[in-house]
Amino acid sequence: MEFIIDHECFNKTISDVTKAVSLKTPFPILAGIKIIAFDHCLVLVGSNSDMIIERVIPLTIDGVKVLEIYQPGSVVISAKFLSGLVKKLPNKIHINVNEKQFVTIQSGEIVTNLNGFYSEEYPSLPLFDETDYIEIPSVVLMEIIEQTVFAVAKSESRPVLTGVNMIFKENQLTCVATNSQRLALRKYAIESSINGSFTVPGTSLSELMKLINNESGVIQLFVIDNYMIFKSTTTLLYTRLIAGTYPNVFELLPNHSKTIIPLNRKQLLKGIDRACLFANEWKNNNVNLEIIDGSKIKISSNSSEIGKIEETQPIKAINGDRDLRISLDGSFLMDALKVIKDEEIKVSFGGTMRPIFIEPVDHSSSLHLISPVRSYY
Amino acid sequence: MEFIIDHECFNKTISDVTKAVSLKTPFPILAGIKIIAFDHCLVLVGSNSDMIIERVIPLTIDGVKVLEIYQPGSVVISAKFLSGLVKKLPNKIHINVNEKQFVTIQSGEIVTNLNGFYSEEYPSLPLFDETDYIEIPSVVLMEIIEQTVFAVAKSESRPVLTGVNMIFKENQLTCVATNSQRLALRKYAIESSINGSFTVPGTSLSELMKLINNESGVIQLFVIDNYMIFKSTTTLLYTRLIAGTYPNVFELLPNHSKTIIPLNRKQLLKGIDRACLFANEWKNNNVNLEIIDGSKIKISSNSSEIGKIEETQPIKAINGDRDLRISLDGSFLMDALKVIKDEEIKVSFGGTMRPIFIEPVDHSSSLHLISPVRSYY
Repeated sequence: MEFIIDHECFNKTISDVTKAVSLKTPFPILAGIKIIAFDHCLVLVGSNSDMIIERVIPLTIDGVKVLEIYQPGSVVISAKFLSGLVKKLPNKIHINVNEKQFVTIQSGEIVTNLNGFYSEEYPSLPLFDETDYIEIPSVVLMEIIEQTVFAVAKSESRPVLTGVNMIFKENQLTCVATNSQRLALRKYAIESSINGSFTVPGTSLSELMKLINNESGVIQLFVIDNYMIFKSTTTLLYTRLIAGTYPNVFELLPNHSKTIIPLNRKQLLKGIDRACLFANEWKNNNVNLEIIDGSKIKISSNSSEIGKIEETQPIKAINGDRDLRISLDGSFLMDALKVIKDEEIKVSFGGTMRPIFIEPVDHSSSLHLISPVRSYY
Repeated sequence: MEFIIDHECFNKTISDVTKAVSLKTPFPILAGIKIIAFDHCLVLVGSNSDMIIERVIPLTIDGVKVLEIYQPGSVVISAKFLSGLVKKLPNKIHINVNEKQFVTIQSGEIVTNLNGFYSEEYPSLPLFDETDYIEIPSVVLMEIIEQTVFAVAKSESRPVLTGVNMIFKENQLTCVATNSQRLALRKYAIESSINGSFTVPGTSLSELMKLINNESGVIQLFVIDNYMIFKSTTTLLYTRLIAGTYPNVFELLPNHSKTIIPLNRKQLLKGIDRACLFANEWKNNNVNLEIIDGSKIKISSNSSEIGKIEETQPIKAINGDRDLRISLDGSFLMDALKVIKDEEIKVSFGGTMRPIFIEPVDHSSSLHLISPVRSYY
């Protein structure tokens, strides 16, 4: 195996696939990157127990030659050393691997020798039917993930809640994430050949967002036994699915509200952010919302030891009951307000001990539910 | 006490003095910032057991009004909350403190109440004679600190080595830092009224660099009992001195060399950086230097498990013995090469088990000493 590659392009690709490489594995080969040189491209693979990332480098990018293959072949090289080394090499990189998997990496006067691993010993990738997929525009898929993945449970106590539940049904994709105190939901119309409910690890989706970030075009989704596969022109991400039944969250969604208030998203977000300053001191993040004189919303938090902060924001309209007082986890509120794209939102309240419900004023393709906390003020 | 202040200017100053505030102290008042409103300025003070930072905000900065004092007075406010809060306030900030030290911070519709502390209970600052000082241009002092402070010992086992030794003698300032494996030394001609040797904590000097960074003008240095004081127009930093006798490092400086090689600083630095990639794997950072054919220097490191890296760089000239092979801690070499300002340096070798000696080709006001390590290759 022998090739010469542009060092910037190589560096970027190594850094992308390294995101899937677990450096703490007891098997040195799994801490490596598999490199396969074909006649017309180079493929790099990194994997851990949850996901596999595969990236393809073509011979030319935007008309510029970045790769010359002299002899096809494959090898596995320690991800840590390869990435550390390639970052520091100044020029084009010449890689040569002999039949004993002894790797020589040369760049100008700099020569490095590494012991590689036989690529046959590297786990083989799951096979999938390349003709059976759903297409989603890359930008849309990224938005769907961004608007839900933050809400997954961080604790592993109910593993199924650490993933985003993707439901394909009746030409609609519904994505839901919840940690049982808050919930994020996003719907999107698709032409679907797949039907079913799949729970994808939040960590894999977060990695996918970083990999695909700013890529135009479409993403193809494939589902096989225990894997979902996301494929763009240069990238393949295989993610393990989480086993177990996802709770039926649709039962939780409120069907009536006592009070509905339209609010400006950014202004509310800034207010909650300030109120969280003291809220953090309580270890929880309690922030109080209260309607004042039927025309203003008071955002406050207090810590008896240190002090209190409060501000009022005008409300344009109130529908329903004008008497309202509720305490919420301010950080959950902020998370939801940050990912909504629309500037005008409506917030629906069912009462002091019922969850609040946030959605854009204009449509209901995205919504957020936040449970109140008992307050002591 | 009452004043209105520009929030950006207030924010910057709070963040500067907070660097001296220890947030882990058992005494809440010491985790606070002392604010003193005079008729013509506002003074903020933060302190910990090692240093005190005092910053002055005048009524106008560059002709722009930033401060209006309505009633002089003083108070101590929790640094954590004051800095967190002021960062998030949008407008001019109105602060009012009543006789019970109850603080009201208002900015537009946002009102915060905090319990302050009586400033009389805050430790008083050391007094010093404002007429007895040495002046050093700010830019020069920053360079002197940068070129020495990195070399202090990180371990507290010999406290005196965690500081930079500043020796004022015969109209010369000599600054030395060493962790006993490497040493950095910088000389500077001054007109000195002070004579003596003072050891200043490395941490205080690092903070001073950040505070004074980019400030033009001069810094005044004062020495009192256990403190050294650095004063610019807007900033005062008091630092505790480290007790104990600093070792006489001048005895260590080599008085003859077997081999002297002129080298380009940046090129050598990049080579050492690459070689350190494998060196890190050994837990120590051994990098080997060797003269090849009397015309090149070979930089290499190896780890039997993973592989090896080597490169050769041309040498313009060699003075002395052409047979040289030495192993050094690569990170110490890099630290020294990074702070030297000149591009052309000379490296002097006394033999395989003797320290190497790096200084600019043109002058000897700055020099670096690095002890070799025993190598096993």
